[in-house]
Amino acid sequence: MKKYSIGVDFGSLSGRAVLVDIDSGNEVASSVFEYPHAVMSEYIPGSDEKLPPDWALQHPQDYLDVLHFTIPAVIKESGVSPEDIIGVGIDFTACTVLPVTSDGTPLCFLDEFKNNPHAYVKLWKHHAAQDEANRLNQIAGERGEDFLLRYGGKISSEWLVPKIWQILNEAPEIYEAMDRFIEAADWVIWQLCGKETRNACTAGYKALWHKQKGYPSKDFFRALDPRLENLVEDKLSTDISGLGEKAGVITPKAAELTGLLEGTAVAVGNVDAHVALPAVGITEPGKMLMIIGTSTCDILLGDKECIVPGMCGVVEDGVISGYMGYEAGQSCVGDHFDWFCKTCVPESYLADAKAQGKNIHKYLREKAMLLSPGESGLLALDWWNGNRSVLVDVDLTGMILGMTLLTKPEEIYRALIEATAYGTRMIIETFRENGVPINELYAAGGIAQKDELMMQIYSDVTNMPIRISASAQTPALGSAMFGAVAAGSDAGGFDSITDAAKVMGRVMDKVYRPIAENVNIYDKLYAEYKILHDYFGRGSNDVMKRLKNIKSSVK
Amino acid sequence: MKKYSIGVDFGSLSGRAVLVDIDSGNEVASSVFEYPHAVMSEYIPGSDEKLPPDWALQHPQDYLDVLHFTIPAVIKESGVSPEDIIGVGIDFTACTVLPVTSDGTPLCFLDEFKNNPHAYVKLWKHHAAQDEANRLNQIAGERGEDFLLRYGGKISSEWLVPKIWQILNEAPEIYEAMDRFIEAADWVIWQLCGKETRNACTAGYKALWHKQKGYPSKDFFRALDPRLENLVEDKLSTDISGLGEKAGVITPKAAELTGLLEGTAVAVGNVDAHVALPAVGITEPGKMLMIIGTSTCDILLGDKECIVPGMCGVVEDGVISGYMGYEAGQSCVGDHFDWFCKTCVPESYLADAKAQGKNIHKYLREKAMLLSPGESGLLALDWWNGNRSVLVDVDLTGMILGMTLLTKPEEIYRALIEATAYGTRMIIETFRENGVPINELYAAGGIAQKDELMMQIYSDVTNMPIRISASAQTPALGSAMFGAVAAGSDAGGFDSITDAAKVMGRVMDKVYRPIAENVNIYDKLYAEYKILHDYFGRGSNDVMKRLKNIKSSVK
Repeated sequence: MKKYSIGVDFGSLSGRAVLVDIDSGNEVASSVFEYPHAVMSEYIPGSDEKLPPDWALQHPQDYLDVLHFTIPAVIKESGVSPEDIIGVGIDFTACTVLPVTSDGTPLCFLDEFKNNPHAYVKLWKHHAAQDEANRLNQIAGERGEDFLLRYGGKISSEWLVPKIWQILNEAPEIYEAMDRFIEAADWVIWQLCGKETRNACTAGYKALWHKQKGYPSKDFFRALDPRLENLVEDKLSTDISGLGEKAGVITPKAAELTGLLEGTAVAVGNVDAHVALPAVGITEPGKMLMIIGTSTCDILLGDKECIVPGMCGVVEDGVISGYMGYEAGQSCVGDHFDWFCKTCVPESYLADAKAQGKNIHKYLREKAMLLSPGESGLLALDWWNGNRSVLVDVDLTGMILGMTLLTKPEEIYRALIEATAYGTRMIIETFRENGVPINELYAAGGIAQKDELMMQIYSDVTNMPIRISASAQTPALGSAMFGAVAAGSDAGGFDSITDAAKVMGRVMDKVYRPIAENVNIYDKLYAEYKILHDYFGRGSNDVMKRLKNIKSSVK
Repeated sequence: MKKYSIGVDFGSLSGRAVLVDIDSGNEVASSVFEYPHAVMSEYIPGSDEKLPPDWALQHPQDYLDVLHFTIPAVIKESGVSPEDIIGVGIDFTACTVLPVTSDGTPLCFLDEFKNNPHAYVKLWKHHAAQDEANRLNQIAGERGEDFLLRYGGKISSEWLVPKIWQILNEAPEIYEAMDRFIEAADWVIWQLCGKETRNACTAGYKALWHKQKGYPSKDFFRALDPRLENLVEDKLSTDISGLGEKAGVITPKAAELTGLLEGTAVAVGNVDAHVALPAVGITEPGKMLMIIGTSTCDILLGDKECIVPGMCGVVEDGVISGYMGYEAGQSCVGDHFDWFCKTCVPESYLADAKAQGKNIHKYLREKAMLLSPGESGLLALDWWNGNRSVLVDVDLTGMILGMTLLTKPEEIYRALIEATAYGTRMIIETFRENGVPINELYAAGGIAQKDELMMQIYSDVTNMPIRISASAQTPALGSAMFGAVAAGSDAGGFDSITDAAKVMGRVMDKVYRPIAENVNIYDKLYAEYKILHDYFGRGSNDVMKRLKNIKSSVK
């Protein structure tokens, strides 16, 4: 009898379940459920008090609804018997965190706290803890805390400690009332198998945990705020589960919620980008996966812990047990092209695209594809949304040069694509220079699957072959694979994610390979990019920051 | 009885006559005639042999037709009797030159040469003598020729010597056959009064002539090419007429052509930009006139000859007799905004502009006007068409930085305007630093009259008041004024252009004055512009040139 597993990918606006054939990784059925509360950035339910700027909350009931709607839906659509579904895995955006009681009840479910915004889920892109992040970075820097180095020198306001510190500062009663502050990934697993686990991925990348060294010291937390001294013992947990472990099994209550059988294996929670690595078949060092969306997340395995300037993080067992997991990123990729299409494309192009029945991206790509590398004379820095790696500087801004009176929109469009490719090469070279080899590239996401121009440019700029994820739902597939590993080979699954990846990991047949003459020209252009990258990004000329200061001063 | 004069302004595509009241400078009638042959950049008449790239020719018959159609037209339209028209002056584009026989017949009028492209007028923007210009600059540099300093260090391919050298190289029979190589301005005057004159303006700015030192030496011309040794004696003239002088009077033949009376005074020829200075009332040092069109030409008087790096030229008596005339320029102004509107304005803006019945420039200006200085966070270098002053470098290209995902089209539009204002300030500061004072600004041209946003920005960036020419045809008015000076006070005109300017020079009532708080912010932004100007423009990072090289290599 064929066996199946289910993966559920919780995104920023919806959750998506896929039911996957364990023999092939093929997706048999899928279902999407959009969060009824979406992202709450202005109001919480039943309140007309406006949230301050930069807030982004979610409602945990939406996550339960995803489980309740999508899992039964894929079971029904596939016609597969729940008996043949041997495991379930989930992945989530991160750092997306919520305060709960000792039995896992979200504080926002309690009448006492349901009107307090701090009782809700803080979504990854809740940016209102920037002050706390700044103070944390300053204090950690002054104290010479070595954990900073594992995170490229800077802790993001998106991460766990700034977020809980914001709660302590603004709603101490919530801080007091919570027994646990937990990643939504782990909270969902708690709902499925009735007990708390914490996964090594979010603990490592978002909560400053280190497999050997644990969390930062009490001294450090006391230095932040005396009330935070016992943060780890009081609100977190030192019991961290490795990826690929079994968190537990479906409880009677969860069986009722999802239609899965009691006792079905449940994998430890995971993060959307990180879970994608085995889904494209990567289980060893040397191969970097780029998950390309509005921004790009790069994931890579290594044999040893290297300190790479400007990486987002290095976590032992953080992606695949037995390896160091490295993360880096570019903050402006799909967003870059969208900005251009909304802001800079002339009416004549849009009319022509419409007449040809093409969307404007496809139309511009086709025009840009006719250009040779270097032909436009343009060069851009891909910093429209700051620089995540390797400069870790949100205050950098975009730059483009080389324009003449003959410069055309498709030339600018191509230059923006090229700029993101140079940014990727900068990340790759920085990893290599610091002892982490990269020999092959993989890409996932809709842009990677559709945009041949971009993938060829990336291959030419990096001088490496690029393989593309075959799944349209790469993270959900990865979660289903972890579900199959949680079930184990005795139940028809796998004993390790490496075994699962060999069978279920999938890439497209088409491989992008560097074209020698393009590589040659892009080497020259990248050399120019690098000079400007360092000039504007490493302090030779901080004009971008000074302009931002002037901008804030006049607003 | 009221007295009048006529000014004729010969542009790149048409000639325009105005009949002006001498008591007030008011324009009584005007008439435009478009050149039937326009600019010949592909074919000469009767030939199907395509011209090489970068050629731009004109037909001298078109200039005669302008005289024949427009002067009778303004006489008729105004109802003024030719007896009351006391003088006529003309101005021309420059360096626009043609080969003629000893009696002034253009070689292209002769059957023998009418099929030879080199027999026609080479328009100012004929750029096919670039090789000759490069060699001239190299040889002059090696020889330490001091005239280079009077032209910002570089001679343009648009000027007289490269153009005649090209003829010698490519059509020695034309070089041989011509008795004179003459500016079209001077050729038209020759047609009106039957004798050759050469004006100090084109001789000085375009033919390397100096009031004290004359032309470059025979040694120099021989170093260029032994056949050029006697260029000055054989093809030019050392008899140079000052501006404001009378060239002669209307001949019987010219009276027939124009409807003017025989004996009407004719002024020495002049150049469009330079003749505009007295038309706005400037006859003394310290006041710079910007003639703003697709590009901008800056004209300024000085008491002494100073060597200003990157100026286009300094010529004694070259604008107003008794003063040094300084010229500088920016190669991309109106063109800059046109490029933006054609290339970068989204469909939604165009639709909205149409709905509001506004042209897109006006629409963008209105949006950009709502922004405060510094609010966009953007900074651009105005080099889309190279940099004329003060870097004198056609290989520089455009740059803009500071973009974020929230950057809007009107912010970019405003940044481009600001960039041209910074370019103007750079010119002004360079003049000041080299001993030529500038205390007030004047502006002429359609953009100056219509674009309040731009003029206020220029005033704020330069921290100077700006006055705007009141005439819609500033050069033609200036020419009419020189016509009145040629007639002299005895005939009801004036004895000097200074006297004429006091009565006939006109500016609008509105004066743009710097707003202190904007000046303060623009000082900071200009400081940033200057750093980038020098970084990209003075050799710290020649990325723009290297990109251009890569561009040529792949084409």
